[in-house]
Amino acid sequence: MAAQLEQPTDISTDVALAVSTVIFALRIDPKTGLTTLWIPLVKRIREPHEGQWALPGGPLHCEESLADSAARTLKRSTGLTPKYLEQLYAFGAVDRSPGGSRVVSVVYWALVQSDEAERAVSDDNVEWHVADDLPTLAFDHNTIVEYALWRLRNKMEYSRVAHAFLGETFTLAQLREVYEAVLRKPVDPANFRRQMLASRAIVDTGRRLTGTSHRPPRLYRYNSDFTMADQGPLTPTRSH
Amino acid sequence: MAAQLEQPTDISTDVALAVSTVIFALRIDPKTGLTTLWIPLVKRIREPHEGQWALPGGPLHCEESLADSAARTLKRSTGLTPKYLEQLYAFGAVDRSPGGSRVVSVVYWALVQSDEAERAVSDDNVEWHVADDLPTLAFDHNTIVEYALWRLRNKMEYSRVAHAFLGETFTLAQLREVYEAVLRKPVDPANFRRQMLASRAIVDTGRRLTGTSHRPPRLYRYNSDFTMADQGPLTPTRSH
Repeated sequence: MAAQLEQPTDISTDVALAVSTVIFALRIDPKTGLTTLWIPLVKRIREPHEGQWALPGGPLHCEESLADSAARTLKRSTGLTPKYLEQLYAFGAVDRSPGGSRVVSVVYWALVQSDEAERAVSDDNVEWHVADDLPTLAFDHNTIVEYALWRLRNKMEYSRVAHAFLGETFTLAQLREVYEAVLRKPVDPANFRRQMLASRAIVDTGRRLTGTSHRPPRLYRYNSDFTMADQGPLTPTRSH
Repeated sequence: MAAQLEQPTDISTDVALAVSTVIFALRIDPKTGLTTLWIPLVKRIREPHEGQWALPGGPLHCEESLADSAARTLKRSTGLTPKYLEQLYAFGAVDRSPGGSRVVSVVYWALVQSDEAERAVSDDNVEWHVADDLPTLAFDHNTIVEYALWRLRNKMEYSRVAHAFLGETFTLAQLREVYEAVLRKPVDPANFRRQMLASRAIVDTGRRLTGTSHRPPRLYRYNSDFTMADQGPLTPTRSH
């Protein structure tokens, strides 16, 4: 063991830091007609990997937090404000960026509301892709998206993350459709209804969806009094 | 929206990167006689926060992965090899390091086996502290430890992380003692036994603990055939 321990301020100057964001939205796949997960990708305009698709991202600005940087990237590439934004992982394999200086990417994942996603803007460099059917991306970005998909699907089971795809109020059918689209499998309506109501995670608003049928479905909201183990003591703080 | 999107290789040179590690071991607290969680801390030998305790850490070396860096820190500060090592979070608040350049810390958490922890070495700069009763640490390290404790306790509920405190085989009483020490509350032996056996997470080895009593308890091991949602597709790869 070394007699002297390095201190946290012995900082490396040879490793650079970037922040990238996996932004999920639910949209209809025109090929299948089914609602599924999409993400926006940016076409790289320089080497390495010029011309390939990559996750939106960029350098961390000096005066912004990691989450602020991710929110800025999201705003820039989609025009949207995230309904849900959480740190995913820091990716730092030695060989993840070919040539030049080594880059460690702190990656966030975000969910945007489905009706907002329809209004998302894109410039020439941004294109939305089906998250489960991507081309070969730049760097290790396929691995990053694969991990983000796993995290989202895993988190559907034990948190209220599905809420982020919906508005403040929603019908049980709308909530079930989110589960079906994200998990890519049919969900039995009766079982779903029973489990959701038993979980205490959602609350009947007493109102009903208007203008739909002679027997309009009830509107629910997530129960904000009910603490779930979403992010624990680390509530993301963003300065704007 | 900006006409041109920044690319992930537009890297910031004003933000430095460090890797720190929260290393948990179970040890007896001489004040209470109870087994509890301890972590090793390093006394800072320079400003900022000179003389304060801090998490072991240091700069990322050019040729090592983030996890390798954390394992190196752990080896250096305890002499031990981690039984469990996982990325916790990247901490990047703008004001987390007073003065000088801004530092983003990618933090790992590690669990070391209890019998190994008894053999842990420490030099003058390293001291073990009770994790739930820490002094004011340097930087945001109290927040980091608080989050690591939350993650560990949360993960006890849905993963086999408790295993990392034990050897390959263990009795149900030993496993229950780990839960009691980490969660800091008594666990009912009969309920614990029933839940553990029903979960399929552990397997009877057919052997018994020798040399203890006329009716020695059964030895169990974790069921490696049984996939749990520990880290999903991101299995940490370390080059050594």
